[in-house]
Amino acid sequence: MLVIGEKINATRSSIKEIIQNRDAAALLQLAEKQAAAGAGYIDVNVGTGVGTLEDEMDSMQWAVRTIQDSLDTPLCIDSADPKVLETGLKARDGRPSMINSTKAEQKGLDEVVPLAQKYEALLVGLTMDESGIPKTADDRLRAADKIVAACEAHRVPLKNVYFDTLVMPISTDVKQGLVTLETLTQIKRKYPEAKTVLGLSNISYGLPQRSRINAAFMQMAIYAGLDGAIIDPLDTELMAAITSGEVLVGKDRHCRKYMRAFRHRT
Amino acid sequence: MLVIGEKINATRSSIKEIIQNRDAAALLQLAEKQAAAGAGYIDVNVGTGVGTLEDEMDSMQWAVRTIQDSLDTPLCIDSADPKVLETGLKARDGRPSMINSTKAEQKGLDEVVPLAQKYEALLVGLTMDESGIPKTADDRLRAADKIVAACEAHRVPLKNVYFDTLVMPISTDVKQGLVTLETLTQIKRKYPEAKTVLGLSNISYGLPQRSRINAAFMQMAIYAGLDGAIIDPLDTELMAAITSGEVLVGKDRHCRKYMRAFRHRT
Repeated sequence: MLVIGEKINATRSSIKEIIQNRDAAALLQLAEKQAAAGAGYIDVNVGTGVGTLEDEMDSMQWAVRTIQDSLDTPLCIDSADPKVLETGLKARDGRPSMINSTKAEQKGLDEVVPLAQKYEALLVGLTMDESGIPKTADDRLRAADKIVAACEAHRVPLKNVYFDTLVMPISTDVKQGLVTLETLTQIKRKYPEAKTVLGLSNISYGLPQRSRINAAFMQMAIYAGLDGAIIDPLDTELMAAITSGEVLVGKDRHCRKYMRAFRHRT
Repeated sequence: MLVIGEKINATRSSIKEIIQNRDAAALLQLAEKQAAAGAGYIDVNVGTGVGTLEDEMDSMQWAVRTIQDSLDTPLCIDSADPKVLETGLKARDGRPSMINSTKAEQKGLDEVVPLAQKYEALLVGLTMDESGIPKTADDRLRAADKIVAACEAHRVPLKNVYFDTLVMPISTDVKQGLVTLETLTQIKRKYPEAKTVLGLSNISYGLPQRSRINAAFMQMAIYAGLDGAIIDPLDTELMAAITSGEVLVGKDRHCRKYMRAFRHRT
């Protein structure tokens, strides 16, 4: 499972402060902690919601350089704006990157997908379009189809594409968990080289004891074939759920990783 | 999820003593505790491994009568011998029962399956035959096919049959979890009216922190469509896993059961 650490996201006020104050030590610590906890990629989202596009581009360049000067862990450049994405990718200077994200809407397909080719980056494709998140697996699959077509047109190999089949709170509609997983299953079947990813914790929004629901949904998603998760890697219960789940689907040969993690814990 | 409480099993020494001493109070307490914890059926296995077949028949009659005199919860009559099964079913005197179990071998198909018809009981069908537990899902499905044929011949409706797709320790072969779940999925697809059941905790045998693995496997099985579980209902973590998992597959309308269980817990 590719864990993408979600903590550096400027929509959270503590992160916004770090970005605005150019607090390099705090930023780097956040990245290092996530890497040490098992994140394979560190997501970097510097959109504070205030200031100009140029401010966000500056922030992205600063954040990327600050982290990569001290840490080898690959970065996931996260923005709604293609210019900010390209600023981050350029700053990476050939180091491995992931782009988060494009939807199946024209602007993303025309401007974000080519960046994945140009910078040989992994690409997160959201299975939604300009009209929002489809309610059914079939409609989400249609969004994936459009992204696949754009990737083929721009020579982005499907093995580099992580489809996010989009998690909605189960508290507002108990059928939505199955829609997310069914979309995931269908994508794996239709595009075997493509990968899948989920930003998982939204599933439990509005419920008590959220970590129970998050862990349960993680297990189901692992069984459905999930390849990546955008989560807080410092959430030890959720990370333990990944370790346990991967044993059960045969991805942990001889249970070695599980034994290493839990042999000495009570 | 139909929870079948597994605690009254005379292969455990403490239960063996209760059976041998005809300790009615202790037996009843075990049954009542499991019912209170959410068991829909209470499994009754009185095979102590010593004594004659007649002894086991006596014990079964005693155990069934002792429990049903005070408790309405249906019983799951559990024995390898058809005569013991029938003794238990007769003692039930028309009350709802489950038979645990038949394999796809001639003796079971000829002698156990007809009991399900005669006593209108639910029937656990193990997806194995005289040669043991098949290694592949296809071979386990073939065992299910034989049980289905016998049920049709003896007019046992498939909606009354719970196929146990058999759990093996993941520590001895990491592929076996997927074989169990794949068999379950195939049975649900081929025989939509039929039910499925697992004796789950064997999956974690030989590993540390077994409850993690048990809960994770429960989530995957719930997603695969599991209808029943032969477990210890006093295992609060596993019962919580069922409650969490059923929310995610849409079986808990408006999350009511989940809210009731966890609203006030920290």
